[in-house]
Amino acid sequence: MKAVRLHEYHQRPSVDEVPEPKVSGPLDVLVRIGAAGLCRTDLHIYEGQWEPLTHPELPFTLGHENAGWVEEVGSAVSNVAVGDTVILHPHVTCGLCRYCRAGDDMHCVASFFPGVDGTDGGMADYLLTGARSVVKLDPSLHPADVAALADAGLTAYHAVKKAVPLLYPGTTALVIGAGGLGHIGVQSLKALTAATIIVLDRNQAALELVRGYGADHTVLADGGEADKVLELTGGQGAEVVFDFVGEQGAETQGWNLARRAGSHYIIGYGGTVNVPTIDIISSERNIVGNLVGTYNDLAELMALTAQGKVQLHTRTYPLDAVNDAMDDLDSGRLQGRGILVP
Amino acid sequence: MKAVRLHEYHQRPSVDEVPEPKVSGPLDVLVRIGAAGLCRTDLHIYEGQWEPLTHPELPFTLGHENAGWVEEVGSAVSNVAVGDTVILHPHVTCGLCRYCRAGDDMHCVASFFPGVDGTDGGMADYLLTGARSVVKLDPSLHPADVAALADAGLTAYHAVKKAVPLLYPGTTALVIGAGGLGHIGVQSLKALTAATIIVLDRNQAALELVRGYGADHTVLADGGEADKVLELTGGQGAEVVFDFVGEQGAETQGWNLARRAGSHYIIGYGGTVNVPTIDIISSERNIVGNLVGTYNDLAELMALTAQGKVQLHTRTYPLDAVNDAMDDLDSGRLQGRGILVP
Amino acid sequence: MKAVRLHEYHQRPSVDEVPEPKVSGPLDVLVRIGAAGLCRTDLHIYEGQWEPLTHPELPFTLGHENAGWVEEVGSAVSNVAVGDTVILHPHVTCGLCRYCRAGDDMHCVASFFPGVDGTDGGMADYLLTGARSVVKLDPSLHPADVAALADAGLTAYHAVKKAVPLLYPGTTALVIGAGGLGHIGVQSLKALTAATIIVLDRNQAALELVRGYGADHTVLADGGEADKVLELTGGQGAEVVFDFVGEQGAETQGWNLARRAGSHYIIGYGGTVNVPTIDIISSERNIVGNLVGTYNDLAELMALTAQGKVQLHTRTYPLDAVNDAMDDLDSGRLQGRGILVP
Amino acid sequence: MKAVRLHEYHQRPSVDEVPEPKVSGPLDVLVRIGAAGLCRTDLHIYEGQWEPLTHPELPFTLGHENAGWVEEVGSAVSNVAVGDTVILHPHVTCGLCRYCRAGDDMHCVASFFPGVDGTDGGMADYLLTGARSVVKLDPSLHPADVAALADAGLTAYHAVKKAVPLLYPGTTALVIGAGGLGHIGVQSLKALTAATIIVLDRNQAALELVRGYGADHTVLADGGEADKVLELTGGQGAEVVFDFVGEQGAETQGWNLARRAGSHYIIGYGGTVNVPTIDIISSERNIVGNLVGTYNDLAELMALTAQGKVQLHTRTYPLDAVNDAMDDLDSGRLQGRGILVP
Repeated sequence: MKAVRLHEYHQRPSVDEVPEPKVSGPLDVLVRIGAAGLCRTDLHIYEGQWEPLTHPELPFTLGHENAGWVEEVGSAVSNVAVGDTVILHPHVTCGLCRYCRAGDDMHCVASFFPGVDGTDGGMADYLLTGARSVVKLDPSLHPADVAALADAGLTAYHAVKKAVPLLYPGTTALVIGAGGLGHIGVQSLKALTAATIIVLDRNQAALELVRGYGADHTVLADGGEADKVLELTGGQGAEVVFDFVGEQGAETQGWNLARRAGSHYIIGYGGTVNVPTIDIISSERNIVGNLVGTYNDLAELMALTAQGKVQLHTRTYPLDAVNDAMDDLDSGRLQGRGILVP
Repeated sequence: MKAVRLHEYHQRPSVDEVPEPKVSGPLDVLVRIGAAGLCRTDLHIYEGQWEPLTHPELPFTLGHENAGWVEEVGSAVSNVAVGDTVILHPHVTCGLCRYCRAGDDMHCVASFFPGVDGTDGGMADYLLTGARSVVKLDPSLHPADVAALADAGLTAYHAVKKAVPLLYPGTTALVIGAGGLGHIGVQSLKALTAATIIVLDRNQAALELVRGYGADHTVLADGGEADKVLELTGGQGAEVVFDFVGEQGAETQGWNLARRAGSHYIIGYGGTVNVPTIDIISSERNIVGNLVGTYNDLAELMALTAQGKVQLHTRTYPLDAVNDAMDDLDSGRLQGRGILVP
Repeated sequence: MKAVRLHEYHQRPSVDEVPEPKVSGPLDVLVRIGAAGLCRTDLHIYEGQWEPLTHPELPFTLGHENAGWVEEVGSAVSNVAVGDTVILHPHVTCGLCRYCRAGDDMHCVASFFPGVDGTDGGMADYLLTGARSVVKLDPSLHPADVAALADAGLTAYHAVKKAVPLLYPGTTALVIGAGGLGHIGVQSLKALTAATIIVLDRNQAALELVRGYGADHTVLADGGEADKVLELTGGQGAEVVFDFVGEQGAETQGWNLARRAGSHYIIGYGGTVNVPTIDIISSERNIVGNLVGTYNDLAELMALTAQGKVQLHTRTYPLDAVNDAMDDLDSGRLQGRGILVP
Repeated sequence: MKAVRLHEYHQRPSVDEVPEPKVSGPLDVLVRIGAAGLCRTDLHIYEGQWEPLTHPELPFTLGHENAGWVEEVGSAVSNVAVGDTVILHPHVTCGLCRYCRAGDDMHCVASFFPGVDGTDGGMADYLLTGARSVVKLDPSLHPADVAALADAGLTAYHAVKKAVPLLYPGTTALVIGAGGLGHIGVQSLKALTAATIIVLDRNQAALELVRGYGADHTVLADGGEADKVLELTGGQGAEVVFDFVGEQGAETQGWNLARRAGSHYIIGYGGTVNVPTIDIISSERNIVGNLVGTYNDLAELMALTAQGKVQLHTRTYPLDAVNDAMDDLDSGRLQGRGILVP
């Protein structure tokens, strides 16, 4: 079969012919890939940024946002059957540790991360994974329409879901960053809450897009944005700030625009939070970390997608054109998420 | 009556003869003071540190940790009666704003703060307050034994109570700071959870004290303390870190000793939290602000006290000796909390 | 001023000329009534059914679903000002008991209930109430459009809000009863959750109405309804059943259609729940009581209304026509809620 | 190896020589049994009461409360190693369904129940189970001291843990039934809450026992018990009633002694709850089902046991004496839980 293999850092991956993986264990699931999302993380892997984190053995197959159809299952697999359309949770977890037993998949003490940590990923005709990573989809959904929700969409949904109890009617959610994660965040907020949604971004086109997805107010980050947000919130700020940027000043602005007794949800990263403890205690505000999401979060996001409440903007490339797609992503020419189809 | 009045910053308060306050409104409560706690905040007020925050008009009566007996009540007061022993929540709240209506007294948009903001406090024979600030006590409790719980104890209890869902059996709570708040925090943890309690302090005597109050492990902050805490927690850190210091490095160490998916509760202040957003998201940890506590928190803490599950170390002074007490507090000679008794 | 006064049980109320009430206490609020909802409870009061419960002294003014404009306020009122449009929470609470201090207004140990317990209600030109019962409205809302949300709507919203954590995407909410409360329940579910909503009723016209309000499926209660609900839920039943009927078999059917680990929310009443304890434990299901709602619930429902997410079907009568309205209600001729306008 | 096998209903099991089970799958765990609890359910199985529920194929090995040491593990087992002391969760779950993925093991859609549903249980020298059922124990714990916590203890702990948020200081927990489950419930309440604990039972000796385990008040069920409980709770009843009986009137008394806004937790069974819906809504009380517990609940209960906060009263029999033990249990001669040791 064909697979997009990374052989060396700083050298573009090649599309190689490799043997098809085989089901051997009772919980194995072989998936015929329908679509694999291309993510900025793939560029970072190519640049070697993940080498010190996961020490992958090269070469391996890229692709950590995968969806397709079940081709074959091991003897103990009970949650999917051959022919089912599936999306894959990015982590394959042990199912045995305290975190897994609490449904907190992201903190599994023994998971692996195909397409990132050296385990073969989904930019290929087939991917071998485990039963614990596959979510069965409504047959109305096509892999190419959902693959990029497996990681980026899941991360946005997870943060929104954690915040639901804080966002009762009359409150405000401030979304910083209207990009790949942010536009799923806005749709998730619309589906799960009646909060007023303000979206802040530097890019007017991105703001236009999220207006159609349910943003109540959009604010261009042109220097006067903090005043506009305060004006929209009676001078108080938002009950919850979703910071999908986490760097370049957003991590400071997000904190400053969180209301008394409110919370600053960090999702993007790159910067540094720098807050005097007196500010934290005198306003009793919180800074909340967010990391991808649980298996059940992904299943819920797929339910929203099947109901038409969440949708992705995508551009499709054949698998062989992976390097065109990477060039487009790298140069900023790619609108929406790039999707590779074998 | 006698009252401890602050006439000028940087000049010790004097014990003056002033008129007794009178009940005039339907929700007024006149309390005969049984005891008023002396707090480091009183020193800060004397030094003028609160001037820019609350702009109090001088002179006024100090004392924001008050307990006593109800002397007279307004016509609409239904929660206490003449003769009841009471402790006073430090804030007198409006009862009408969204926060008050949710029981979140500390965020009342129109509260006042007797003894601090220029409203007369409780270092006096009598204090006039409102029905919403008085908590009726079990008659077995004496004002002198509980007054200092009104603010310091309440703050520690509030933080612990918020963390209860995170501290199931098998988890660890790390308490940084075994002083006035910390020793109430340890007792509250013992009463409300089955978590293993580790206490960290620079002062060996303070650690001895909290051992008797339920600390499972004490660790002297002598440079090797982080390694010892990691050793006690299987290399992982604590599910919840209660940082009663919040400065001088505790705010960094507290974060570092919070486990993956855990939380760093900030209660003390003075320093600055400085954390890369990648650390926040990759471990999905939280930084949680904590501010005093609710009226119901104070009532619950009084229930614990009546049951003998929480107790305070105190030293009593007559009201006339307020400046001896302040000198002792300032110079570090005061063991336990200083309590003024009219 | 004019007021609808009940002088004797089983005798229709008369529209009398009575003195206007006056503000006397600091927390008093005088409201010029814009609209008062007519409720089946008013018929029950007229029939004497509430006599054993609240022993009202006759005569008194009816009307417990009230909205209008603030005419005058006492000296301590800070949450509304003269001229504000307001809706009135049906209970006037003490603000001092544990329940009030936790925001749980319905369990106040010292509340009164104007229009029901002998305190004068709002079917009049003016109503005197307390600051704790008035919710300030968005000026875009008119009293006649919202008055009936004060009690009926609040009750439906409160039950839905309690269930939000159970109704994640992919779950089903079954609403039994598409009438006055049910149609607000459906709209609240749509606003606060992404659950699939099934509505069950005996009345086809009522089902048509709720389809327009967001019901995903409607099922006519014609004998085969249980099978249809099971078919729509994969044979499992609903995660939450909202039983707005609570009698005539609904209280049994509601339980039977609650899924394993699910909950049966009782809102309507009149019947008796009769369930073997083995059924309760072997499926780990719950039966949940629901009683009106909190002050903050009402404020949140008003936020939804101002956003256009909740609306009421009403028919307006002049105050003098109260007995026409009662006749219409009693005989089933009244479509939607009857609203009296002074 | 020896195994206690049920060959026919209404005929006592025999101790047979059978082949040792073998590890074959990657998640298999072979446990050398250290102790197996004898439970009233074993009598019910012998009497054929479970035949219509689980249709077990006879003969099979009894024993659903098991603890021992790991003898051998499959290739994918990462949570225990050979030689570990373990206790076994009574259900072996799939790890793949929504319930398992949420940590809600009792609602697994594809679990099996060794010793009850025809799968071989633990009254034998060895038991073959899956990695998802084994909880690693602190080496200080001995199987004979904990085996009976696997089911009975877990059920009591699970109910208590669910109620923790309701049982803040100052509240009351009423425990009905001071037997096998009740005495673990009392110890769990003491470990996890500061609530006042009242225990109600017909048996004075059982009440004496729980006094030593932390009951604050004990009440003999002699006809005047309801009045005594009301007297102890200021006429209000308890915030949470734990009904470990669920029949013979307890299910009615439990409801009646639950306070306004409180909850009646059903754990025992046999009777029928019969409550008018008006009582449910007018007091906003809940009836809460409880079913065994989760894997993590069992791990937490073992943490409490290792800390000495929970202990069991037991009487040990050799495996060959199983029928003596069953006779003693049946006739009421057995004090504490019977434990079979191979």
